[in-house]
Amino acid sequence: MTPSIQRTGSIHDTKKWKEFEVIDFKPKQFGDYDIDAKIEYCGVCGSDMHTLTGGWGDITPPLIVGHETAGTAVTVGPKVKFIKVGDRVGVVGSCLECNRYKSDNENYCPSMIDTYNSKFPNGDIAHGGYSTAIRAHEQFVFPIPDGLDLDNVAPMFCAGITMFSPLKRHGAGPGKTVGIVGVGAKALGSDKVVVFSHSTNKKNTADVANVPLPLFLKTLRLHGKFLIVGVPDNKFEFHTMELMGNGGSIAATHIGSKKEILEMLDLAKKKGVKSIIELYSSGCSTSASGSFFYW
Amino acid sequence: MTPSIQRTGSIHDTKKWKEFEVIDFKPKQFGDYDIDAKIEYCGVCGSDMHTLTGGWGDITPPLIVGHETAGTAVTVGPKVKFIKVGDRVGVVGSCLECNRYKSDNENYCPSMIDTYNSKFPNGDIAHGGYSTAIRAHEQFVFPIPDGLDLDNVAPMFCAGITMFSPLKRHGAGPGKTVGIVGVGAKALGSDKVVVFSHSTNKKNTADVANVPLPLFLKTLRLHGKFLIVGVPDNKFEFHTMELMGNGGSIAATHIGSKKEILEMLDLAKKKGVKSIIELYSSGCSTSASGSFFYW
Repeated sequence: MTPSIQRTGSIHDTKKWKEFEVIDFKPKQFGDYDIDAKIEYCGVCGSDMHTLTGGWGDITPPLIVGHETAGTAVTVGPKVKFIKVGDRVGVVGSCLECNRYKSDNENYCPSMIDTYNSKFPNGDIAHGGYSTAIRAHEQFVFPIPDGLDLDNVAPMFCAGITMFSPLKRHGAGPGKTVGIVGVGAKALGSDKVVVFSHSTNKKNTADVANVPLPLFLKTLRLHGKFLIVGVPDNKFEFHTMELMGNGGSIAATHIGSKKEILEMLDLAKKKGVKSIIELYSSGCSTSASGSFFYW
Repeated sequence: MTPSIQRTGSIHDTKKWKEFEVIDFKPKQFGDYDIDAKIEYCGVCGSDMHTLTGGWGDITPPLIVGHETAGTAVTVGPKVKFIKVGDRVGVVGSCLECNRYKSDNENYCPSMIDTYNSKFPNGDIAHGGYSTAIRAHEQFVFPIPDGLDLDNVAPMFCAGITMFSPLKRHGAGPGKTVGIVGVGAKALGSDKVVVFSHSTNKKNTADVANVPLPLFLKTLRLHGKFLIVGVPDNKFEFHTMELMGNGGSIAATHIGSKKEILEMLDLAKKKGVKSIIELYSSGCSTSASGSFFYW
């Protein structure tokens, strides 16, 4: 592996999104605060699927998705303070300019540079984790605590923080009841976690109830909140009466800040939180997103 | 006027919603805590229009709308404590059973008895303020402070409290910026009130900006709230990305509690808050809701 030339799995056309092509890719110009990390694991996120299939709009090819990366720092810029070569790290992209960054809200930066399908100010292209390596400013490189396995921690850099941040910001904790559409965990200490699911195969993690989608809003307590943590291709619609009876609200949130990611990793270590994962080798030809590539 | 038989303007068919028919109507059975109030003014609310035109669904005829009523107490039940004959009063309907009532949240009661198009537990029909009089439990009858004019205060029992309650519950006050789609006031002390409007004829009350509807959500500050205080006939739709960038939320609210109505009336008196009203005599044949009736 040559850190300056990274081997990636890319697509060029959302209409042929299953046809990954292996290409060599030159990452952004190396800066004094940058780190090159060898990618050992990369989660397959719903966002990858939305982007690959064009559901979130046009792409700028080549598109190299993947943003739940975990690996090892292999090259470290001269001004990097908190990461050294050999450290186990995760990587999430953002920018460093706006006031939201200065208040630990960089995940709501209006000029955000996403991990992929995005450009740096100098025109270099940001690419994702379906790759041999990734290059990023140390602000977006996270040391992984001992005791957390690389394969298990990778999805926490999106799926994990996407749940952790809104639960914190919207006050989950003792005295609160949390319902999760999909699946979830109980580590933040809320009194009760209810999982709404179409199937019962997640019954080991929490209580499972089958509730039709239009009723979710009606299940809210007085002034309860329905938090949207994913981004469906389609619009979300509701009738005001479905929300008004409880004085409820619908909030949308976006991943989490560096500060929250560090807290999450610490919590995962202390409470032994594990991701539920399926492992595929990178040479596997069938996976959640169709076909993978070899490196 | 005979309080036990009230003369009302009613409709029987939402398809002929402009054809008001004057009928004599027997109000609900008089209870020990009930008050009969002679109605002197009744606001025409958007809710009346939604209900009259069938936009909110089927009606149980005869339908007698109007819920922004102000008038004078003419009969008072033997157990009524806080209202005496001759008091100037406003009336808003609800029920008295649930826990939400006990926590000053009766405006979110799941078994609410609305002011009209609703039934009392004994089967009696609740009717509204397009009438000579109205009968209600004293819990829902509000003494009007001296210094507030009956005609001016009537709309506060819906339009006023519908704004006041969410502004209070969602934290309007010093340090906050409030944008109002329509028109609004500044009495709660927020730093800035911005009115979004298609016309500029409300410029005297606040700054006016012309902003297309899809941009409202994008105007929110970080974790800002978009409060829906009306109930459009149609569904509300948005794309998650429009809300997610700011970590914003959409909340729907429903009028306000008795406690809040009393606070609002007190605030209106102290700060000299006035409704913007147009007066029509009850015999007028054209009005905001088509045709009125005589009494």
